[in-house]
Amino acid sequence: MMVSSQTSPSPQPSPARGEGAKPFSIPVRIYYEDTDVGGVVYYANYLRYIERARTEWLRAAGFELDVIQSEIKAVFVVRRVEADYHSPALLGNLITVTAEPTEVGASRLIIRQRIRRDDELLFSAIVTLAFIASDLSGPIRMPAAMRSAMKSTISQALA
Amino acid sequence: MMVSSQTSPSPQPSPARGEGAKPFSIPVRIYYEDTDVGGVVYYANYLRYIERARTEWLRAAGFELDVIQSEIKAVFVVRRVEADYHSPALLGNLITVTAEPTEVGASRLIIRQRIRRDDELLFSAIVTLAFIASDLSGPIRMPAAMRSAMKSTISQALA
Amino acid sequence: MMVSSQTSPSPQPSPARGEGAKPFSIPVRIYYEDTDVGGVVYYANYLRYIERARTEWLRAAGFELDVIQSEIKAVFVVRRVEADYHSPALLGNLITVTAEPTEVGASRLIIRQRIRRDDELLFSAIVTLAFIASDLSGPIRMPAAMRSAMKSTISQALA
Amino acid sequence: MMVSSQTSPSPQPSPARGEGAKPFSIPVRIYYEDTDVGGVVYYANYLRYIERARTEWLRAAGFELDVIQSEIKAVFVVRRVEADYHSPALLGNLITVTAEPTEVGASRLIIRQRIRRDDELLFSAIVTLAFIASDLSGPIRMPAAMRSAMKSTISQALA
Repeated sequence: MMVSSQTSPSPQPSPARGEGAKPFSIPVRIYYEDTDVGGVVYYANYLRYIERARTEWLRAAGFELDVIQSEIKAVFVVRRVEADYHSPALLGNLITVTAEPTEVGASRLIIRQRIRRDDELLFSAIVTLAFIASDLSGPIRMPAAMRSAMKSTISQALA
Repeated sequence: MMVSSQTSPSPQPSPARGEGAKPFSIPVRIYYEDTDVGGVVYYANYLRYIERARTEWLRAAGFELDVIQSEIKAVFVVRRVEADYHSPALLGNLITVTAEPTEVGASRLIIRQRIRRDDELLFSAIVTLAFIASDLSGPIRMPAAMRSAMKSTISQALA
Repeated sequence: MMVSSQTSPSPQPSPARGEGAKPFSIPVRIYYEDTDVGGVVYYANYLRYIERARTEWLRAAGFELDVIQSEIKAVFVVRRVEADYHSPALLGNLITVTAEPTEVGASRLIIRQRIRRDDELLFSAIVTLAFIASDLSGPIRMPAAMRSAMKSTISQALA
Repeated sequence: MMVSSQTSPSPQPSPARGEGAKPFSIPVRIYYEDTDVGGVVYYANYLRYIERARTEWLRAAGFELDVIQSEIKAVFVVRRVEADYHSPALLGNLITVTAEPTEVGASRLIIRQRIRRDDELLFSAIVTLAFIASDLSGPIRMPAAMRSAMKSTISQALA
């Protein structure tokens, strides 16, 4: 039947400072904009969802990208993505997107990201980011408070 | 300071069957994917946000687009958009996107949509949609239950 | 048969300084990224194509947006779009996108844009743009040389 | 100066059946839609450009994706992407995007793709694709003529 059985989307991020091994995650609803004529989500769009999860993970840790750009004059840029497409997301799906740091360097981050629909793994990726000056002149060190907030989520994620 | 003052996003749609004149709305967070080198949201992306609001309005009324496509073999297509860009949305903003039907015909819908950041109007549009066969062969009548659910949100929106 | 009968895409813009009434145009090929699960081009994407045509029209007149942003510290922003969707573009289509200025003010432009597949009109729009300071502080006057180059394409377009 | 020194874009693909080791390539112009507030091309968009190059490589070999979908009832889906971001593309850049098959299996393809601005390498990726039934039911064998056309471009690419 056409009547919705799924509840409305409530993209409430899971806690960043989790109890136990639960990684940070956000829900993402799949809309027409996300799909292609093949009937599934267009492959580049999964990179949009994992970036949203990284942004919310950072926000949950107390840091916002627009403030980082205006106050520290720095941006995160992606250096490498290894992505595996296991099964496609479809129109109307409510998927869960995780962000789990695996390495926090002075100006480099490695984050493991997974996308699931219920218990099914749809997509996984390892993303390497650099923290660089906004004028693209080169890498700069992340503030100590930022690194330490990030590291606190690592140990929990891997605990 | 860099520490976030905004609370986490909780894109909980407002009730479709409102008490009073409150139109249906959803929150949308602005990410890097949404912006352009001009420093603001890219102009075509507002059309993505208003489509998300239309989809959630329909879902809140009990109808899901993927089910409509698979069971009724029909899709909504946009026939006309009149859009005014009042003020730009920026990276990190949490905006509110409304969907208020103003006309529900047999196979045609007109919806007024607005985007606000707090109380400031950023964008407004009037969107005309047609309900057509999935094979694009022509317009078909919306099911009576769908039209009546839609109409119930009109009278409330304009009451 | 599967063998292509269409020739390869050669997005060579038509001349900006036309002989007669031919408006400036560019070809655009439709890829998977452009489509949605409805089987047609996603409605917001037509706004991307018409922006490409505006950019190439400006380039053909001797002006590049990145140089305008870095040297004049100005950007064009869209103020209003009136768009009519006549017939959908499909995967693999080679479409033609025009840009014809109808009004060139001190800091405001109105451009008529059309998208065709062969002789069939798929989409038409009237776009109003403002020329504003890059820091979004307000409108600024377009350089005289830019306005005069733009105007020279008007008279030809409407001649 | 603001006057353009670059010539107009003429996205004429390089020959698929090259003389010597030159891989298939297409030019891509960077527009506002491609950039983000960081001042560079948004990272997911490189996946759009390499897909355009794969599509044009296939078209140059005599095969069109829309025809494949309607006649063979099959689609290519991406299974894995390994992408390295070397240096960012910027607004107004004219970049060159290559597609070089390195493995052509019964229902699996591996393609090496590179993006350059003049001689500078901006992005490189290894993309694994599967040829599957349009209804997503599973992999199917590519037609012999398609595999053999693909293989002919391999040997040239690697010769």
